[in-house]
Amino acid sequence: MSASFEILSESRSHGGRQLVCRHASAATKTDMVFSIFLPPQAERGPCPVLWYLSGLTCTHANVTEKGEYRAACAEHGLVFVAPDTSPRGAEVPDDPEGLWDFGQGAGFYVDATEAPWSTHFNMWTYLGSELPDLVARQFPADMQRQGITGHSMGGHGALTMALGRPGRFRSVSAFSPIVAPSQVPWGRKALGHYLGAQGPAWRRHDAVALIEDGALVDEILVDVGESDPFIEKELRPELLEQSCDKAGIPLTMRRHAGYDHSYYFISTFMTDHVAWHAERLKRG
Amino acid sequence: MSASFEILSESRSHGGRQLVCRHASAATKTDMVFSIFLPPQAERGPCPVLWYLSGLTCTHANVTEKGEYRAACAEHGLVFVAPDTSPRGAEVPDDPEGLWDFGQGAGFYVDATEAPWSTHFNMWTYLGSELPDLVARQFPADMQRQGITGHSMGGHGALTMALGRPGRFRSVSAFSPIVAPSQVPWGRKALGHYLGAQGPAWRRHDAVALIEDGALVDEILVDVGESDPFIEKELRPELLEQSCDKAGIPLTMRRHAGYDHSYYFISTFMTDHVAWHAERLKRG
Repeated sequence: MSASFEILSESRSHGGRQLVCRHASAATKTDMVFSIFLPPQAERGPCPVLWYLSGLTCTHANVTEKGEYRAACAEHGLVFVAPDTSPRGAEVPDDPEGLWDFGQGAGFYVDATEAPWSTHFNMWTYLGSELPDLVARQFPADMQRQGITGHSMGGHGALTMALGRPGRFRSVSAFSPIVAPSQVPWGRKALGHYLGAQGPAWRRHDAVALIEDGALVDEILVDVGESDPFIEKELRPELLEQSCDKAGIPLTMRRHAGYDHSYYFISTFMTDHVAWHAERLKRG
Repeated sequence: MSASFEILSESRSHGGRQLVCRHASAATKTDMVFSIFLPPQAERGPCPVLWYLSGLTCTHANVTEKGEYRAACAEHGLVFVAPDTSPRGAEVPDDPEGLWDFGQGAGFYVDATEAPWSTHFNMWTYLGSELPDLVARQFPADMQRQGITGHSMGGHGALTMALGRPGRFRSVSAFSPIVAPSQVPWGRKALGHYLGAQGPAWRRHDAVALIEDGALVDEILVDVGESDPFIEKELRPELLEQSCDKAGIPLTMRRHAGYDHSYYFISTFMTDHVAWHAERLKRG
């Protein structure tokens, strides 16, 4: 493994600094790469943090290059952190059939309990404590003011992290999230491999089940494209609407005609999400 | 070669449509790929067109993914076209030493006159007539209102296209342009291969030489990063300042402390350039 922390690249952008960093992770027992944008306001003191969890196959790079978040983060003074979606490397096991919906690039933001996955696939711990501790140590980040968002599998991650770690996040939103992995093919495959047979461990990593089991957040913002090819089989936003409705969680679900699952969709509504988080992160 | 025109992908974005298209080019005798963004206003009628010429090694994809132009083009109602930087394919000759600064991905926006380049490397004709004719035929584009910009080698292309085709463009700007290819290593290598020994043909593809020889545009906007690693050896913005000053061409040269040559820089100032072009393209 490489040094415990190093900056791989740094560029000035939108008045702030876009960095890509690498560090040796104890949780995943691999090197991990993430990107972090520091807005101009961070030169004068700690700024609230917005986490962005990416979808299947993605690294930090997809949103960093295509997400169009920097202008809004610079306007509102938010730090934006984009972690990788799984451990990676020759020593890390991967999908047995070489498919893209599981294994490397598809960590599903859980701590795996099943062999051979449990050695490295510990994204819940990595994002729950290790990476935030590193961010707090290395950067002007106000860890009392954290929000989280994400896309698709990362929308699942954002919702479950916010529901499963009460008090950690002041705000949560998602783009095209997988809301009920226990009930859809991508999720059932991943949770089965990582966590074993369906049971309580699955429910702790399923936003709809968490809400059914009593987990709460103040409110949720979700954007989804009506032309998203995964909406009916994998995303199933109506299940989140039903569970939030029953639980009394205010959910703003925006369905956008003609939009698909791509970063062309995400980038269109990124400014809205950044502003929405900023409003909540700066309160009180 | 493939069909004369086909849409490879289409996504809704920022209220408009982002397309990637392929067509068989008579000028380059290859298939050529370009991207085009149609703002929401294009559903109601023809919109002004902003051309963006890319830099060394790039395809249409770099600016399409990283350029952050769609929000501004949707606001101002501009069509945004991003062509490739050269012909490509197994039959197209490439840099004899396999370097990235010449050959495929480095057409320098000229019509080559020297073998073996002259068969395919005809970007001047391709962008001068063939691609605009296709855009006018296929899309709601107001070809009486065209502006042009570009980055690095594409900044060179934007300046020389505007200076060398009087009346075609109402507005011209550039990010980190190569302003005097005859005087710098990248340019001397490319022009030497494509056009032969230094002479009048070089001057027609050198913005500083064109201005010295009497070519005019109404005004020019240029942004460049002061931490750009190519500024002193390849870009030399001071040569454009000197030639514009002598010729009386109003040049707005903005030098930005800390910014480099990347799309992190370009995307920061893209909104400014789109607005600047929109103001000029919508006049009278």
